[in-house]
Amino acid sequence: MAGTPTSYTVIGAGAVGLLYGTRLALAGHPVRWLVRSGVEEIRRGGIEVRSGGALLRLPPGEVAVHGDPATVPASDVVIVATKTTANERIGALVRSVCAPDATVALFQNGLGAEARVRAEVTAAGPVLGAMCFVCAHRTAPGRADHLDYGAVTLAPLDDATDRDGRPSRLAAERIADDLRASGVQVSVQDDLAIARWRKLVWNIPFNGLCTLLDASTDDLLADPATRRLVGELMDEVIDAASAVGHRIEQGFRDEMLATTDAMRPYAPSMKLDLDAGRPLEIDAIYGAALAAARAAGAPMVRTAALATMLGHLDPARRA
Amino acid sequence: MAGTPTSYTVIGAGAVGLLYGTRLALAGHPVRWLVRSGVEEIRRGGIEVRSGGALLRLPPGEVAVHGDPATVPASDVVIVATKTTANERIGALVRSVCAPDATVALFQNGLGAEARVRAEVTAAGPVLGAMCFVCAHRTAPGRADHLDYGAVTLAPLDDATDRDGRPSRLAAERIADDLRASGVQVSVQDDLAIARWRKLVWNIPFNGLCTLLDASTDDLLADPATRRLVGELMDEVIDAASAVGHRIEQGFRDEMLATTDAMRPYAPSMKLDLDAGRPLEIDAIYGAALAAARAAGAPMVRTAALATMLGHLDPARRA
Repeated sequence: MAGTPTSYTVIGAGAVGLLYGTRLALAGHPVRWLVRSGVEEIRRGGIEVRSGGALLRLPPGEVAVHGDPATVPASDVVIVATKTTANERIGALVRSVCAPDATVALFQNGLGAEARVRAEVTAAGPVLGAMCFVCAHRTAPGRADHLDYGAVTLAPLDDATDRDGRPSRLAAERIADDLRASGVQVSVQDDLAIARWRKLVWNIPFNGLCTLLDASTDDLLADPATRRLVGELMDEVIDAASAVGHRIEQGFRDEMLATTDAMRPYAPSMKLDLDAGRPLEIDAIYGAALAAARAAGAPMVRTAALATMLGHLDPARRA
Repeated sequence: MAGTPTSYTVIGAGAVGLLYGTRLALAGHPVRWLVRSGVEEIRRGGIEVRSGGALLRLPPGEVAVHGDPATVPASDVVIVATKTTANERIGALVRSVCAPDATVALFQNGLGAEARVRAEVTAAGPVLGAMCFVCAHRTAPGRADHLDYGAVTLAPLDDATDRDGRPSRLAAERIADDLRASGVQVSVQDDLAIARWRKLVWNIPFNGLCTLLDASTDDLLADPATRRLVGELMDEVIDAASAVGHRIEQGFRDEMLATTDAMRPYAPSMKLDLDAGRPLEIDAIYGAALAAARAAGAPMVRTAALATMLGHLDPARRA
């Protein structure tokens, strides 16, 4: 790497923020976490991410963690790794730490957050989406278990340029290089919408069914009937993406099934959120896709039923 | 009533068998229960059904309860009030107590049991279906709570005649008269298939959603999203019935919603079955309707998804 290493602000210290932020920090990047809670615990205990057989560790003195956005130094890149359930405040949150023309990368699930940041944060330079295909969960403040996979797909929202006049694609390539040098598998794609819809092909069936049936991915795939329903839901997402104008090849469904077969038994984040009484990411994963598909005349009947059932269980509804 | 009162054998001592059998017994009919378990408890403790403010009670000495079909006297009418989950044995069960030309009335949920009895029990006279719109559950051997409603719709399977040469419609009228004289609201209809599909308009949404969401009927109706899903499922059933050749008026959906609004909060039997680890009545309530609809080219997409999810939770699958 020539010159100064890229600096990062990571908003959120859930599994995703801890895993990728720690990898970047261990590779020599200045990384500042902005967190809503757990500042003292992280300062006292540092960060530990169990990743496969390894332990990624940032000792207490070497973690820059902030509870107040005003104290976070300007960084080249802002990684948003919060849950989408708080996305009605995403503009204010990013603005609170975003230096002029900084790159903003949304390490989140679902559709729509990038456009919202572009609209609400005038200071932002390139805005990127990051799709993390990863099995990981936070176990305590500053602690996470990374169980399986971990690849990231980066894609620019549009062709905006960064502070050096380089287009978004190059900003994505720079972050991709940093992540690769940190030990993360990364691909950069040009079409964010397709990348986001491809991620939904997995998220829509597995998040919903695992949550509703209190099951893990392998449970669903071992039962021929739920395996078929997973496939039907994947087809609905692929068909809706196509109706919206984003063609996903039909073989992708079987690829996703095979990838999940090869995965260790996994309980998606939405199920863990329900178990812990946290709000469910229904709007980002289901609501936005259903609205887009409806507008394009694709009904997504099974997906809509799933979203309705999840909405009924959502701790946010009962709050 | 002229002459000897009609005698009844009631197979099963769940909520339905206890409630209607006890009412008939209290009205002066010989009633014999054939039960698989709990014979000693019922002999010792009699039968008690809490029905609204009243207690319907048959003291220990006045209950005829049998564990062995060979000891059950021949009755004019055999009421089958077992769960449909044991219906692969329904022919043998009815044969074990069915006098030649006795009327058989199936107080069960779902589709298909009447045709099965007609095919498997050559001794049977008229075969009737009984749709019970009732909120009730068994609390212990010989004990049940009857919470709300209780009306029964009787309909003959076909035009077979009973031992006196009277057609099935008259056999249905005779049982209807007995039930009415016992304090039960009854209607007799000519078209069993339509009556069975009408019952499914309620059972398919409420059994499934209450079970999957651990909810009672009022929970589902108070949440606008699940209320809409209930309505969509009702429409699917009405459309499927129409495709199969049984026209149900569209207003029936709103009638069922209004009836359920007026009902006390209720947890359908399937949810109680899941909570108790008993097999779920998926084949009778969902499987038979889905197969009939599929054969008629009506897909019932939401119903099929519900059935798949229920199947995954079915304690019978895990056994």
